[in-house]
Amino acid sequence: MTDAERGYECSPWELRWRGLAVDQLQRTESTFALSNGHIGMRGTLEEAEPRALPGTYLNGFYEEHGLPYAEGGYGYPEAGQTVVNVTDGKIIRLLVEDEPLDMRYGHATAHHRVLDFRSGTLRRETDWTSPTGRRVRVRTERLVSFTQRAVAAIRYEVEPLDDEVQLVAQSDLIANEPIEPDTGDPRVAAALEAPLQVEYMKAEDYRAVLVHRTKRSGLRMAAAMDHQLETNDGLRTDINVEDDLARLTIAVDVPLGQKLCLTKFLAYGWSAQRSIPALRAQVDAALAGALQTGWEGLLAEQREFLDQFWTTADVELDGDAELQQAIRFALFHVLQAGARGESRAIPGKGLTGPGYDGHAFWDTESFVLPVLTYTLPDAARDALRWRHSTLDKAKDRAAQLGLRGAAFPWRSINGAECSAYWPAGTAAFHVNADIADAVARYLAATGDTEFERQHGTELLLETARLWMSLGHHDPHGGFRIDGVTGPDEYSAVADNNVYTNLMAQRNMREAADSCERHPDIAEYFGVDEAEIARWRDAAKKMLVPYDELLSVHPQSERFTEHARWDFAATPADNYPLLLNYPYFDLYRKQVVKQADLVLAMHLRGDAFSAEQKRRNFAYYEGLTVRDSSLSAGTQAVLAAECGHLDLAYDYLAEAALTDLHDLHNNVRNGLHMASLAGAWLATVAGFGGMRDHGGQLSFRPRLPSAVDRIAFRMNFRGSQFAVEIEQDKTRYRLVHGEPLTIMHYDTPVTVTEQTTPLPVPALEPAERPSQPEGRAPARRGDGLPRAGDTIQPWYARALR
Amino acid sequence: MTDAERGYECSPWELRWRGLAVDQLQRTESTFALSNGHIGMRGTLEEAEPRALPGTYLNGFYEEHGLPYAEGGYGYPEAGQTVVNVTDGKIIRLLVEDEPLDMRYGHATAHHRVLDFRSGTLRRETDWTSPTGRRVRVRTERLVSFTQRAVAAIRYEVEPLDDEVQLVAQSDLIANEPIEPDTGDPRVAAALEAPLQVEYMKAEDYRAVLVHRTKRSGLRMAAAMDHQLETNDGLRTDINVEDDLARLTIAVDVPLGQKLCLTKFLAYGWSAQRSIPALRAQVDAALAGALQTGWEGLLAEQREFLDQFWTTADVELDGDAELQQAIRFALFHVLQAGARGESRAIPGKGLTGPGYDGHAFWDTESFVLPVLTYTLPDAARDALRWRHSTLDKAKDRAAQLGLRGAAFPWRSINGAECSAYWPAGTAAFHVNADIADAVARYLAATGDTEFERQHGTELLLETARLWMSLGHHDPHGGFRIDGVTGPDEYSAVADNNVYTNLMAQRNMREAADSCERHPDIAEYFGVDEAEIARWRDAAKKMLVPYDELLSVHPQSERFTEHARWDFAATPADNYPLLLNYPYFDLYRKQVVKQADLVLAMHLRGDAFSAEQKRRNFAYYEGLTVRDSSLSAGTQAVLAAECGHLDLAYDYLAEAALTDLHDLHNNVRNGLHMASLAGAWLATVAGFGGMRDHGGQLSFRPRLPSAVDRIAFRMNFRGSQFAVEIEQDKTRYRLVHGEPLTIMHYDTPVTVTEQTTPLPVPALEPAERPSQPEGRAPARRGDGLPRAGDTIQPWYARALR
Repeated sequence: MTDAERGYECSPWELRWRGLAVDQLQRTESTFALSNGHIGMRGTLEEAEPRALPGTYLNGFYEEHGLPYAEGGYGYPEAGQTVVNVTDGKIIRLLVEDEPLDMRYGHATAHHRVLDFRSGTLRRETDWTSPTGRRVRVRTERLVSFTQRAVAAIRYEVEPLDDEVQLVAQSDLIANEPIEPDTGDPRVAAALEAPLQVEYMKAEDYRAVLVHRTKRSGLRMAAAMDHQLETNDGLRTDINVEDDLARLTIAVDVPLGQKLCLTKFLAYGWSAQRSIPALRAQVDAALAGALQTGWEGLLAEQREFLDQFWTTADVELDGDAELQQAIRFALFHVLQAGARGESRAIPGKGLTGPGYDGHAFWDTESFVLPVLTYTLPDAARDALRWRHSTLDKAKDRAAQLGLRGAAFPWRSINGAECSAYWPAGTAAFHVNADIADAVARYLAATGDTEFERQHGTELLLETARLWMSLGHHDPHGGFRIDGVTGPDEYSAVADNNVYTNLMAQRNMREAADSCERHPDIAEYFGVDEAEIARWRDAAKKMLVPYDELLSVHPQSERFTEHARWDFAATPADNYPLLLNYPYFDLYRKQVVKQADLVLAMHLRGDAFSAEQKRRNFAYYEGLTVRDSSLSAGTQAVLAAECGHLDLAYDYLAEAALTDLHDLHNNVRNGLHMASLAGAWLATVAGFGGMRDHGGQLSFRPRLPSAVDRIAFRMNFRGSQFAVEIEQDKTRYRLVHGEPLTIMHYDTPVTVTEQTTPLPVPALEPAERPSQPEGRAPARRGDGLPRAGDTIQPWYARALR
Repeated sequence: MTDAERGYECSPWELRWRGLAVDQLQRTESTFALSNGHIGMRGTLEEAEPRALPGTYLNGFYEEHGLPYAEGGYGYPEAGQTVVNVTDGKIIRLLVEDEPLDMRYGHATAHHRVLDFRSGTLRRETDWTSPTGRRVRVRTERLVSFTQRAVAAIRYEVEPLDDEVQLVAQSDLIANEPIEPDTGDPRVAAALEAPLQVEYMKAEDYRAVLVHRTKRSGLRMAAAMDHQLETNDGLRTDINVEDDLARLTIAVDVPLGQKLCLTKFLAYGWSAQRSIPALRAQVDAALAGALQTGWEGLLAEQREFLDQFWTTADVELDGDAELQQAIRFALFHVLQAGARGESRAIPGKGLTGPGYDGHAFWDTESFVLPVLTYTLPDAARDALRWRHSTLDKAKDRAAQLGLRGAAFPWRSINGAECSAYWPAGTAAFHVNADIADAVARYLAATGDTEFERQHGTELLLETARLWMSLGHHDPHGGFRIDGVTGPDEYSAVADNNVYTNLMAQRNMREAADSCERHPDIAEYFGVDEAEIARWRDAAKKMLVPYDELLSVHPQSERFTEHARWDFAATPADNYPLLLNYPYFDLYRKQVVKQADLVLAMHLRGDAFSAEQKRRNFAYYEGLTVRDSSLSAGTQAVLAAECGHLDLAYDYLAEAALTDLHDLHNNVRNGLHMASLAGAWLATVAGFGGMRDHGGQLSFRPRLPSAVDRIAFRMNFRGSQFAVEIEQDKTRYRLVHGEPLTIMHYDTPVTVTEQTTPLPVPALEPAERPSQPEGRAPARRGDGLPRAGDTIQPWYARALR
């Protein structure tokens, strides 16, 4: 196989990597990761090596470490949290005669792996010739079950290709795998070196269990495996266990024409409180269920779950095979990140890698939940329940910062603030409004009154209280929120960030509405009419700065008076800027890392006129360098709204391909969930023009020239409906449930099972705005890959 | 001795502590510290224990340590520096019969220590009864020589009071004394635990030398001692040396009526480059010089040096004995910090303790050098030479920050930035203008053209270049300096800080003037006419924000629009605020840690009208909490200018007594040099009304009601003159040198040996401005200590 044949293959319903490229394993380990939101497994080879990073994660399971400060300050968190690579159960090693199967040695005549978006499995097929000339075919398939939350399973088959061969397979559970630490901080490295202490181990027949506990955070986890073997007689097995290793060894002579077939069932559980026997019982029970279901049963359940998902969530994009694949890849991974989290966070990287220490950010509420709300609403609800479960910590944090209500963390695993950078960890308050916005969106999209009464109202009112105590009425009568950090990380601690102020405004209004809907709940939390009136008054008087001279909104007050960054004098190698310029200089100049004012125009589009949006968008396009993966999707949405459809398309491609093309050169550490979600948003909110201000679904569909048709499906208030957009018309069709009313270009439309096509008005041509030198998105043009083409990473890089 | 008799005694020319209070040793170790600017020795008891902190320092001698960051950033310094407690030579232990002299045991019938501002020595007299009833009198006197820079000496006498007694004295050089680390950072603690590695040792007769080197910074130091003994026969001595200890042991039987008299001579040297033999030779030579001079000779030289200093620098204040003492104490310590630094920094704590890690800050140029410029100008020159010697590092730092010219560090020992807090270390650029201001002041006060050509012009032009690259011309034509941190540490990274902008304006003008005076130097550094024109243009257009609504200057742009700190809701225990509130909240509200706009009105008083000063002063009084020792002196200066003479007097007292009353509860770690200098500034610039704008000395004298007379002396352009202020008149008198012209209330006056009294105009009464609740300075009223009174620390605390 030549270099030109290696890489991802363009295909609508799967992601296939052809050939082996050891230096690309770091990428496929992340893109091939399997997860159900509770368990995550990186796409490492079964034989464990070669590999970049092992990685098995349990959502919420972390180790703690001290945060060092050369100069400390009040309110700096003392402890950090970092996701732990837990006991690894995905390893099955193979000895072919006396040669270990290792892709770096011998010779692979065929090798490919494929992540299947409909079966929800990762398959592999390898024809391997050992250094001494023995040929075998290895076929594997693995899944992390969407239906049995604690369960993963691997099907492992080996057949000789020339002659009878002696095979020895070793199926492992390994704790404390050695990892090269990425961190420069010796304390974090120390915390992550062998973080697990064994508490219990047992092995019998084909089954083994290991129970470990983290040293400092004191969390306990159990991992168990059991096996089914289908093979000829003459099998010899042995199982043994030690502190950090349980191993089933299978030795067998396999004649030509027969196979060694092994199914490995894995179960995981963790708890901060439950005892060793309880956790052991939990994983044993999960294994029993999995064995009862069996491999074929697990496969069938998995496919059924995904069929249901795609029925209600699929996105079709005709005319660009690579983007079609990328958007389904994106949706598949967003699903994997959120499906079964069940009151745990959705981390910025999902469970695909150790990036960001496994922390969750505002990314979840602002990018991932808008997708899940309309595709898998229960998952959105569960993620918000996680926030609710951390309210005590958020209220303590607010009190520590001298504020009322709740101050949710900038980054965290367990809900406690872990940011050691105070301009984020004590000033990026918008995360609270982002959470409130996600609550309001979920409530509007589902009408889930039970959630509102149990969780939603409290989340809204405690965040509203934060804003009331954080802002103040200035002598001119405006309500100001000074000294906060908005979404753009190339600015910090500025006054009246437009995004923050508008989102806080919505937060206070939603809290008032929710309290008025549920006066008993409001009373329980001590909210009286006077407090509600204060929220409404502050929301009404919220200061939104505007630069009359330039006729644009400054991102924050005075932003537009600052010097523009000297883009012409900035070499391409100096991006991302934060690695090459000091904060003070980035902060004091007009340069934008990621959509901020532009994000405000998406989420609070109701607060801007169309003309303001056009002017603002063009202005900020010239300043935005996209050193963050949280930007392209939003820029696509506003580009589409402002009539720059081809630019929107370029941004959609960037968002969708961020991980597949490794545009930020860090996919090794995990996928960018917000960017993947951004691909959906770029499609649905961008080209579909979907908005949900005030809980009213509205659409203004329009297609870029390169695309013939975009179709997507959504959930809304228990109904599923499909939207099918062509260049000049759009169809809305009810798939399931009650008819509902949406807006199509400001006209109410009732969506039923039969709808007639509605016209899409033609757009006036608009001049494409320009970006900072060298920072324009790659143009999506001719010569794009088609179905069946191989997409090489070096080609992908050249796109940039 | 009762508690009421313990404490400092009020006395005009000395600081005497009566009685022993072990818990107060931490204070007297700092206040009794001796230094010549090169060597510093804390005022520990000769017998080493009890003690709070040992401390022997060599200016510029530091150990390096890593700076840890939980989240690093571009431009964060990797290495910190911290002053090292070097080999301790001030220890002389005594065994009385078989009992070690230890003030915690036995019984002291008399004990006092006195720092003598005219002899420049620390004396002690102790009558001690051992637990077994032996009575001895110990008299010691020590000095760090102003005239022999590398030399210190101790005179040690013991006499029996009842009967012949056997005495054993042990005179030590000890390296790596164990210290309880103050730091919470284990890396710093590790760096400071035994920082010295022995390289050479030798002992012979009464002499010993130890050479050590720091582990990481690689600096080498030598300490040597020699002794002279005067005693009866029958003396037995022994000298020995090991890695970290050299010890001369003297055993002798002393009959009643005789004494053991011992003189210990110490010599110190350090170098980053010189060899072991070279350093050893250096300290041997210093010892030889000291022995040749002898104890009495060293005493005589010391007194002569101080007589000269007081002749040209004394300040008299009639009517408040405690303040008279405190001001001389302040001047004495400022002298000690700067006298013989010789191209080393003057640290924030001088050489009196390990506070601030021994770093130098802008305190030096903005507070200490204005005093030295007019009292000991050569010391001011030497401190500026230190800045000049670090220009390479400052230029590298500027380049690293993306700027031109030189960016001097926020805190450092060797000139490299050591601040781990980026809002200071990469944004508090005013330090550069402060250095330029000190250069300009020194040049105007001395006419030292040689210094200007060799150092001054370059310092001015490289700092001017920094401002040109840091600021920008905005579209309205103003020159803006955005995103910098001014003097007030309760604000950070704000736009157009008035202090910074005005000081930068002066910086650019002084650079232009100096380059025009020395076109050859300018040309050598590549300054052409166009660059000079750009400086002048930027200076001319410098933006100085003004709040038209409130008719005050905002400290930085928009400052006056921010919420006022809620002082009424701030409990007294929550000061200093930075220990109890997060940065973001302090930064975004109107609360001032230390004079900022008010300091601008002192140093750039030429840029404000009298009415503006009055309004601004009153406004900022209401916001300034003085959580810093760098504030009271400046507030005194402006209070006096604005006619609040009694308030100015209260602030003078606070500045002068900061260390003697331990107002910040941290004098253990060293004296506050800037506050001590502030006492002189409060007197001379406050009540003397001395200003030096544009190099023209001017005075507007006025006295507070409590004081009958203030007299001070100054150097200016080689002449010394005296100013004597009474309530209604002032005399200016030439003491030495050529007559000179000053301004008295806007009238030129030629100062000669004979001058007639000039009238002091009566002031209109002005309403006393108010301070934040609980933060008014203590009122200086009735019942103040008089000469001979003992000032008890508990009394002093109650002043607050």
